[in-house]
Amino acid sequence: MIKQFINEAISLAQQSIDTEQGGPFGAVIVKDNKIIGRGYNQVVQYNDPTAHAEMEAIREACQTIENFSLKGCTLYASSEPCPMCLSAIYWARIDCVIYANTYEQAATIGFDDQFIYKELNQPHADKQISISQIKDKSILKRSLDVFKAWKNLPIRKRY
Amino acid sequence: MIKQFINEAISLAQQSIDTEQGGPFGAVIVKDNKIIGRGYNQVVQYNDPTAHAEMEAIREACQTIENFSLKGCTLYASSEPCPMCLSAIYWARIDCVIYANTYEQAATIGFDDQFIYKELNQPHADKQISISQIKDKSILKRSLDVFKAWKNLPIRKRY
Repeated sequence: MIKQFINEAISLAQQSIDTEQGGPFGAVIVKDNKIIGRGYNQVVQYNDPTAHAEMEAIREACQTIENFSLKGCTLYASSEPCPMCLSAIYWARIDCVIYANTYEQAATIGFDDQFIYKELNQPHADKQISISQIKDKSILKRSLDVFKAWKNLPIRKRY
Repeated sequence: MIKQFINEAISLAQQSIDTEQGGPFGAVIVKDNKIIGRGYNQVVQYNDPTAHAEMEAIREACQTIENFSLKGCTLYASSEPCPMCLSAIYWARIDCVIYANTYEQAATIGFDDQFIYKELNQPHADKQISISQIKDKSILKRSLDVFKAWKNLPIRKRY
């Protein structure tokens, strides 16, 4: 079954090339030996920089089971997930990931996940983008009040 | 203008609470002093674990300008972006991020970005999820062939 699922992910990567929708990446999500979500890179097609294969597969799988948690699911990816997709895998509570191509191989065709990994680990002041907290005290109080309001809700749907 | 934009992000976070669609997070994306994308957390509403405020704002902004690149844009977020959103910010080529609440404050209300950061930095073997490369040589060859096919395309839309 594992071979079948990873082959399906690779076929989706090929589909992304054939239809010129984005980079050569595909993914499927499996629950109880059934594919519940499929995705391939559609960044170019959708004008959506978040439309990576794994993200699309996660979104479709969640729609299939009508739940924002994919606990008990396995994600098969044609390539090692980038930091965005890997973080999404954690948020989605996916248990297991199996991939084929590696980061290093993706870098050789121009997809440099390692740059993002490196940036994530830099202190904000050393990052290549400008990222900082606003200084205005009344705004900081207002934003913290929103957190407090959420914390004090009688019922919160946790995710 | 900065105060206005960050206040709009905080108002969107409040909206997420008022409408019970997800966690208390909001974001806007600004280009040439105009808001071109808005988002608030809709994980619960959409059954979509990727529907964080920043992701929604990025998607909307890209639709507005019909481009997958947000070069020259600033993102204002009610809270410091999580690793998924921060990675998406890099993929989207956003130049500047201004936020109000910090990771640490988000952790006190139950949103533990630091857990994901820590996991991203662990070798796969030490991660709390199972993540590994498939061993089958013919599958690895097939997946690498897809990369090569992409590399050899006469025209590739880079992103």
